[in-house]
Amino acid sequence: MKIAVVAPSCPLDEVAARRTAERATRFGAELHFHPQCFSQAGHFAGPDDERRAALLEVMADEEIDAVWFARGGYGSNRIAHSIMRALPPEAFDKTYMGYSDAGFLLAGLHKAGCRVAHGPMPQDALREGGEAAIDRALGWLAQGAKDALEPGLSDGVPAMAFNLTVLSHLLGTELEPDFTGVDLIVEEVSEYEYRIDRALFHVTGQDSVRKALRMRMGRMSDIPENDRPFGSDVGHIFADWCARSGVVFAGAADVGHDAANRVVPFGARSA
Amino acid sequence: MKIAVVAPSCPLDEVAARRTAERATRFGAELHFHPQCFSQAGHFAGPDDERRAALLEVMADEEIDAVWFARGGYGSNRIAHSIMRALPPEAFDKTYMGYSDAGFLLAGLHKAGCRVAHGPMPQDALREGGEAAIDRALGWLAQGAKDALEPGLSDGVPAMAFNLTVLSHLLGTELEPDFTGVDLIVEEVSEYEYRIDRALFHVTGQDSVRKALRMRMGRMSDIPENDRPFGSDVGHIFADWCARSGVVFAGAADVGHDAANRVVPFGARSA
Repeated sequence: MKIAVVAPSCPLDEVAARRTAERATRFGAELHFHPQCFSQAGHFAGPDDERRAALLEVMADEEIDAVWFARGGYGSNRIAHSIMRALPPEAFDKTYMGYSDAGFLLAGLHKAGCRVAHGPMPQDALREGGEAAIDRALGWLAQGAKDALEPGLSDGVPAMAFNLTVLSHLLGTELEPDFTGVDLIVEEVSEYEYRIDRALFHVTGQDSVRKALRMRMGRMSDIPENDRPFGSDVGHIFADWCARSGVVFAGAADVGHDAANRVVPFGARSA
Repeated sequence: MKIAVVAPSCPLDEVAARRTAERATRFGAELHFHPQCFSQAGHFAGPDDERRAALLEVMADEEIDAVWFARGGYGSNRIAHSIMRALPPEAFDKTYMGYSDAGFLLAGLHKAGCRVAHGPMPQDALREGGEAAIDRALGWLAQGAKDALEPGLSDGVPAMAFNLTVLSHLLGTELEPDFTGVDLIVEEVSEYEYRIDRALFHVTGQDSVRKALRMRMGRMSDIPENDRPFGSDVGHIFADWCARSGVVFAGAADVGHDAANRVVPFGARSA
């Protein structure tokens, strides 16, 4: 099992890379950290051209079984459209995993017909208890471990998971996938309640999203304190926008910006 | 000239109301501050029901010539859809003005066929030099003063102006107006460069926005400092997304979250 790691958004920490590589051997996985992971250009892990080239290179490599996005942050959207227009045939024989900003790529690659999953990334090795997140990701990527999966997924029901802000920003663009009949899981981190409310207004205001089978709320963590109390909490905010838009609110999902983040493969799975 | 002031988002400061009322007499305008302006419920100027009722009340009042939104903040989107479904016939004989969060209402009301303009609000009286903003707004509302208008507007070319984040969040919802052939002006305040970049990716990634005649950049002010430099500035970011999406970038526009903010009436004007 050969897994290539690239960083379409922000650079990977070297300590996180080393810790992740140490765990990989226990799962019989061979990790290849592309040098681009450690490149830096302003906010990004190298300029757009470098990030795009690294991703296309590993996508075209027939020796590689999986492409693991190193870290979120911001920037994968800047290369996503051009990646979708240049997909090599070998891209379809691989699994892609990541979350947060990498959701732009998960959306586009899933739409194009690739196998993608929302799940932990190498940078998570730096979190408190992050080893468990890395093991979960490797267990699923290398061995298909079922206990890595988000426990509320239903056989035969296609699922997707996104960061709320990322989902909001890909709607209406070429990256937007088909939400029809989907168990749509949404998580958020470090956003004010008024921003969560506004993004959920936007997301649930789309005809396309209203075709989802249901929505579930991942963790909404590290919410900064408002200048004055917002007047509601995220659970009520989430349920309220689902009710207003006629989308079924189906409770909590075990994903989020933390070490407990479970794996959500996109699309339908059989038992 | 009777102008009703309501607050569909956050509450109006009483000092700002007093200062605005003092200026109004010089323009022969009679200001009616709806008591709802000073209501408070969590983040908002009263609960959704109260804000909605106040706005519908002044919209239905045939004595009122103009409805002036008191202040931005957040929250007009939460009542906008239900307002659009309950428009009284008298709503179409009025002019509506505001900006920032009020852009949700400007979009929906313009789409419904009402006369709307992006321009200063009573809360701006508290800004440094805010009296000029209030006078500009009153001069245009009460006397149609042409020197209040954004100087780059072209006769016969329909225009619209929005806060970038507000525009991004109304796309694809029932509030989205038709951008075909429009001089589309976008301003922003207090957002990181990476967020501005992401929102412009989203906005210019829409087929609907790509029908605009051109885009112009209002002021992008009070940008917080990134943890590490983003690697570009807002002028280049704006021009880059226009270029990528095939939208004509037509330079700067004289609008923004400041006392110099000029008036942009939506739709086409004759000379």
